[in-house]
Amino acid sequence: MDTPDGPGVSGGPRHPALATTEDLVRLAALVGRRLTDMGATVSTAESCTGGLVGHLLTEISGSSAWYVGGAVVYSDALKRQLLAVPGGLIETYGAVSAEVARAMAEGARSSFDTSLAISVTGIAGPTGGTSTKPVGLVFVAVADAAGCAVERHLWDGDRSANKRESAHAVLRLLLDRLAT
Amino acid sequence: MDTPDGPGVSGGPRHPALATTEDLVRLAALVGRRLTDMGATVSTAESCTGGLVGHLLTEISGSSAWYVGGAVVYSDALKRQLLAVPGGLIETYGAVSAEVARAMAEGARSSFDTSLAISVTGIAGPTGGTSTKPVGLVFVAVADAAGCAVERHLWDGDRSANKRESAHAVLRLLLDRLAT
Repeated sequence: MDTPDGPGVSGGPRHPALATTEDLVRLAALVGRRLTDMGATVSTAESCTGGLVGHLLTEISGSSAWYVGGAVVYSDALKRQLLAVPGGLIETYGAVSAEVARAMAEGARSSFDTSLAISVTGIAGPTGGTSTKPVGLVFVAVADAAGCAVERHLWDGDRSANKRESAHAVLRLLLDRLAT
Repeated sequence: MDTPDGPGVSGGPRHPALATTEDLVRLAALVGRRLTDMGATVSTAESCTGGLVGHLLTEISGSSAWYVGGAVVYSDALKRQLLAVPGGLIETYGAVSAEVARAMAEGARSSFDTSLAISVTGIAGPTGGTSTKPVGLVFVAVADAAGCAVERHLWDGDRSANKRESAHAVLRLLLDRLAT
């Protein structure tokens, strides 16, 4: 049976209003400052956000000191090829699942040799939803030396808003992990 | 001697005003329509745009039919690892060069097995410029079955504007290649 929530998956905190571009860039700047202070690096593994998280991180001047890049893995083939996500995991749980989000983040951290890595996989919409995996369902993950945190979200915006909220969620989760 | 323009590199057409987000998404939609009509696919290899081109392509609903994903290669290590850009090419010409832009696009097309691939490499600023390679210098490329087109641009905006103009330029070049 499909278990989209999976073990140890947090629902993530609620937040009231749609994040603006300014909010997102401010959050990326906070992430950058913290990574700089720690001498740490990050890489990205993005499916439904399509590169938005990398774009936000590289809005920050000097980001090349802590951001090496990453993979945009829209197709399942690239999830396997670039992040070493096991094909069996995608078949068993689906590409939009806590298990694949975790494998993407851990794969990016290992393949791209960074202190931390983030991942996003979800259904931005308006098409592609099913009864068990509706439009707006998104998993975000952050892998670091201590393990991997995964959050499940269900957004109710349009495609663009769902991508933006997902980017916001993963940057907040990354900042949380950097604060601990 | 360093030859940032290189053989067969076009300067690209001028355009009057800073592209808005709406302009960029409209251009991405045109690209998507043309790829759909042709039954063709595209992948992305982004350095200074950091994922912005992938983000724009995935703003279009149904983009998974023609966009497989790609690589954000902020570091030179990832340019080599994910796109098979020869290390010697980066040493000889620099990461911001027509030669490396071409190798990135051709590497993405081959590694990600798509009909076409785009690349962007440049210096978004405000730091990182030199006398021969100033802030705002950007090379964009599109590889397809017929070869690879490269354009050189010199933007005079801030970091965010230079990224946006670069995304605009490479989407226009891609649309041009699709029209021929």
